[in-house]
Amino acid sequence: MLNIRIVLLVMGLLLVVEGAFMVLTSIVAAIYGEYDLPFFLWSALICFSIGGILSITNYKTSKNIGKREGYIIVAMVWLVFSFFGLLPFWLSGAIPSFTDAFFETMSGFTTTGSSILEDIEALPHGILFWRSLIQWLGGMGIIVLSLAILPVLGVGGMQLFVAEVPGPVPDKLHPRIADTAKRLWVIYVLYTVVETILLCLGGMTLFDAVCHSFTTMATGGYSTKQASVAFYDSAYIQYVIILFMFVAGANFTLSYSALHGRFRRVVQDEEFKYYLGFVVVVSAVVAVVLFVSGDAPTIEQSIRDSLFQVVSLITTTGYATADYLVWVPTLSIIMFMLMFIGGSAGSTGGGIKVVRIVLLLKNAYFELKRLIHPNAVIPVRFNKKAVSSTVVTNVLAFIVIYMLIVGVSMIVMSIMGYDLETSVGAVATCLGNIGPGLGEVGPAANFAHVPAFGKWFLSFLMLMGRLEIFTVVLLFSPYFWKN
Amino acid sequence: MLNIRIVLLVMGLLLVVEGAFMVLTSIVAAIYGEYDLPFFLWSALICFSIGGILSITNYKTSKNIGKREGYIIVAMVWLVFSFFGLLPFWLSGAIPSFTDAFFETMSGFTTTGSSILEDIEALPHGILFWRSLIQWLGGMGIIVLSLAILPVLGVGGMQLFVAEVPGPVPDKLHPRIADTAKRLWVIYVLYTVVETILLCLGGMTLFDAVCHSFTTMATGGYSTKQASVAFYDSAYIQYVIILFMFVAGANFTLSYSALHGRFRRVVQDEEFKYYLGFVVVVSAVVAVVLFVSGDAPTIEQSIRDSLFQVVSLITTTGYATADYLVWVPTLSIIMFMLMFIGGSAGSTGGGIKVVRIVLLLKNAYFELKRLIHPNAVIPVRFNKKAVSSTVVTNVLAFIVIYMLIVGVSMIVMSIMGYDLETSVGAVATCLGNIGPGLGEVGPAANFAHVPAFGKWFLSFLMLMGRLEIFTVVLLFSPYFWKN
Repeated sequence: MLNIRIVLLVMGLLLVVEGAFMVLTSIVAAIYGEYDLPFFLWSALICFSIGGILSITNYKTSKNIGKREGYIIVAMVWLVFSFFGLLPFWLSGAIPSFTDAFFETMSGFTTTGSSILEDIEALPHGILFWRSLIQWLGGMGIIVLSLAILPVLGVGGMQLFVAEVPGPVPDKLHPRIADTAKRLWVIYVLYTVVETILLCLGGMTLFDAVCHSFTTMATGGYSTKQASVAFYDSAYIQYVIILFMFVAGANFTLSYSALHGRFRRVVQDEEFKYYLGFVVVVSAVVAVVLFVSGDAPTIEQSIRDSLFQVVSLITTTGYATADYLVWVPTLSIIMFMLMFIGGSAGSTGGGIKVVRIVLLLKNAYFELKRLIHPNAVIPVRFNKKAVSSTVVTNVLAFIVIYMLIVGVSMIVMSIMGYDLETSVGAVATCLGNIGPGLGEVGPAANFAHVPAFGKWFLSFLMLMGRLEIFTVVLLFSPYFWKN
Repeated sequence: MLNIRIVLLVMGLLLVVEGAFMVLTSIVAAIYGEYDLPFFLWSALICFSIGGILSITNYKTSKNIGKREGYIIVAMVWLVFSFFGLLPFWLSGAIPSFTDAFFETMSGFTTTGSSILEDIEALPHGILFWRSLIQWLGGMGIIVLSLAILPVLGVGGMQLFVAEVPGPVPDKLHPRIADTAKRLWVIYVLYTVVETILLCLGGMTLFDAVCHSFTTMATGGYSTKQASVAFYDSAYIQYVIILFMFVAGANFTLSYSALHGRFRRVVQDEEFKYYLGFVVVVSAVVAVVLFVSGDAPTIEQSIRDSLFQVVSLITTTGYATADYLVWVPTLSIIMFMLMFIGGSAGSTGGGIKVVRIVLLLKNAYFELKRLIHPNAVIPVRFNKKAVSSTVVTNVLAFIVIYMLIVGVSMIVMSIMGYDLETSVGAVATCLGNIGPGLGEVGPAANFAHVPAFGKWFLSFLMLMGRLEIFTVVLLFSPYFWKN
C-alpha cells in the first residue's frame, strides 16, 4: 500500500521552505522598492498556508519512505515547487502568461536556463533575484536541500537521494545521508560566495554578481542581462565564470576532498580526468578552427570564446558569449554534440553525464578485445574497480531511453511546424538542462515563439532530464503502480 | 603468426569469380551491341590474370583460417571486389572519374545505392546490368557466395561467415556452413526470378525487370531510371516491389522455413513480429499524415507512398517513389529516424538491424522493473530464450561505436562545407547502406557534388556499415595486430 500521507507531509514541509525563500527575496525587492514587493509576500503567504495545512494534517503518519513513495515524492516536489514558484512571476505581471511563467520556473528549478523573456533588463530586481535563486536551489537539488535541513526526512533519505540523483556509480561521501547533504551545501555556498567576490572585483555590481554566481554554480545559465554574459566584454569576468562553471560541472565530493587537502583523490578520479581532458581537447580544437576560420579576431579571443562555449555546453550551464550558430558548420555541429555529454556525476550539471559516456566507450573498446578472445573475461574497470554488468546494462538502458525520448520529442516538436534542426535542438537542450538550442531556439534567440503546448512539453522534458530519466519514466510505467 | 598466403589465395580465387561475372555481363553487352562490350572482356581478363597468379602461387598454403585471417579476408575481399569491379565503369568511360567509379562500385557491392550518376538512362545496357548485378552479388554477401561455390573455404568458413554477418543472435540454419550458404543462394535466386516475372507482367521490359529484381532482393536500390521507381507510375509495379523489399529485409532462414511448410517458425519468430509490426504501424501513421497534410492526393496514394518509403528505408533499399524532403517536417524527421533501424538479421538489409533495436528496448524496459526490484534476476528474453549479458553488452558496444562513427563522420562532412542536415543525412544513409539522405543528398538529388575526399570517406562508411562495424573497426585497433 502506498503511503500517500507521507507524500503530502513532505510536500507541505517543503512548501513552507519555498515560502521562506520568497520572504528572503522580498527583502531584495524591498531594498530596490519596486512594484514586485507585495507579490512575493502574497506568494509566500500562499505557500505557508497550503504547506502548513498539509504538514499539520499529515504529521502523525509513519515516517517510513519506501521505494515507491521515494520516486513519487521526488517527482512531485519538483512539480509542486515549479507551480508555486511561478507565483511571483505571474501575480506581479512580470510574466503575464501562466504557461510562460511555468516554463520559466521549471527551466529555472531544473537549471535548464531556456527562457521566454525578451527584455530581461526591464524586470524589477526582486523578480531577477528570484529567477536566479530558483536555479541555485534547483542546482544542488531540492531533495538534497531538504535532507540537510529537515531531519524528519532522515529515515527514507537515501531512497529520496537515489531517486533525485541516480548516477550509475554511487560515490558515498559519508554514510549518513543528512551529513552528506549538509557538507555538499556548505561547499556550494562557499563557492558561490567566492565567485561573487571575484565577479565584484571585476566590476560587476553586487546584485549582478550574486545572481550570476547563483546561476553559474547551479550550471543554470539564467543571466540578468538579455545578452547573457556577452554583455560583459571583460576577459577577466568571462574567465572567472569559465572557472566556476568548470568546478560546478565536476563532482562536488571531489571539491570536498580537495578542501580537506586530499588532492590525490582528485587527480586519481577517473571521471574527473576524462572531464578535464575532454574540455581541454575539444576547446583546443574549437579554438584553432575559430581562429583559422576568422570567426574570432584574435588568438586570445579564440581561446576564450572556445573555452567559454565548450565549458558552458558540456556543464549544461548554457550562458552565451558568442552565437555558435553563426560559426562555421563544423563548429555548430561540435557544439550540438556537446549537448549530449553533460557534467560529471555528483555535480550540478545535467545531461547524460561524463561517467556514462566513459563507461559506454570503455565497454565498446573492451568488446573489440572480447571479439578476438571470446573466452577471456575482460570486465570494464572504472576507478580501478571492475564494473558489474548490472551497471553496464543500466547505463545502456539510460542511453536508449534518453535517445528514444529525443526521437519521439523531435516528432512532437515538428508537428508544431519546426524543422529538424530547431526540433532536435530544442529537445536536446531541454532534456539535457542546458538552455540554448539550434535554429529558432539558438543562443541568440529564445523560446517565446513556441506554442503553449510546446512549452508544457519542453518543461516536462526538463523535469525528466533533471531527474535523470528513470524516476519520471518509472512513474509512467504500469508496472510501477502494480502492487 | 598471420598466414598472409591464405589471404592472397582467397583473393585470387574470388577475383576469378568476379571475372566470370564480368564475362556474363559481356553477353548482355553483346546482345545490345553497345560500346561497352570490349571493356567487360578487358576487365575480366585483368581479373583472371591477377586472380590466376595469386591462386597458383599460393595454392599450397595451409587451408586453416584463423580468427584474424578471417577478419582480414572479409574486409579485403570487399575492397578488392570494389577496386576491380569499377573497371568496366572506368575503362569504358561511362564514369570517367576513378573516384566516382569507386564510389559507385562500393555503393553497389555494399547495397547502399547512393549514386553519383546524373543521367542514368544515357548509359549502355551492359553497364546498367553490371551496376545492378554487383548489388545482387553484394546483397547475399560475397563470402556467402564464396562459401557456396568454393569448397576450399570450407575449413574456416564459419569464421568468415561470422566476420561478414556478425548478427548478435546467430541463428544456424544448418550445421554445415557450405550447405547453409547454398540454401540461402537458392532461395535468393528463386525470389529474384519470381519478382522478375511479376514485374514483366506489370509491363516492365525484361531487362529492367531483371535489374530491378537484382537490386530489390539485395535491398540495394540502384534503378535503371534516373527517377528511380517513381518512373513507373503503376500501382501494381510499386506494390510488387514493396512486397519483395519486405521479403528481402526479413531473415532468409524464415523464407527457408516457410518454403518447407514450417509456417509456425515464421509467425513465432520474434524479430519478424517486431519487423512486421513496426512497418505496419509506422506506415499507417505516415499514410494518415500524408493524406491529412495533402502531400498525397488520394487515400490509395497515401498508403502506397507511405508503405513504399517506409519499407524502402527500413529495409535499407533506398528506392524512391516520392521525395520525402518535400513532405511536412514531421514526416521528413520520421523518414530520417527510419535510417537508424535497418532490416532483420540474416536479411540482405543493412543498418543497425531490428533485433538489436528490440534487444535495446527490451533491456531498457526490464531495467525499469529492476529499479523497483533490485535483487530480482530479470533477464531479457528473445525468442523465448534468456539473452546472456554478453550479448547485451555486445549490442551496447555496437550502438555506441555506430553512433560515435556517425558523430565523427558528421564533423568530417561539415568540414567540406555541408550543413548539419546534409552531413548527418549523408553519413546515416551511407553507414546504414540505404541510399538517399537529407538536404543536398536527398532522394531527389545525388552524390555527384561531394568532393573527392568525401566520396572516398563515404565509401569507407559503406564498407563499415556492410560488415556491421566490428570487422572494420577491429582492423584499425592496435590490439588486433598484437601477437
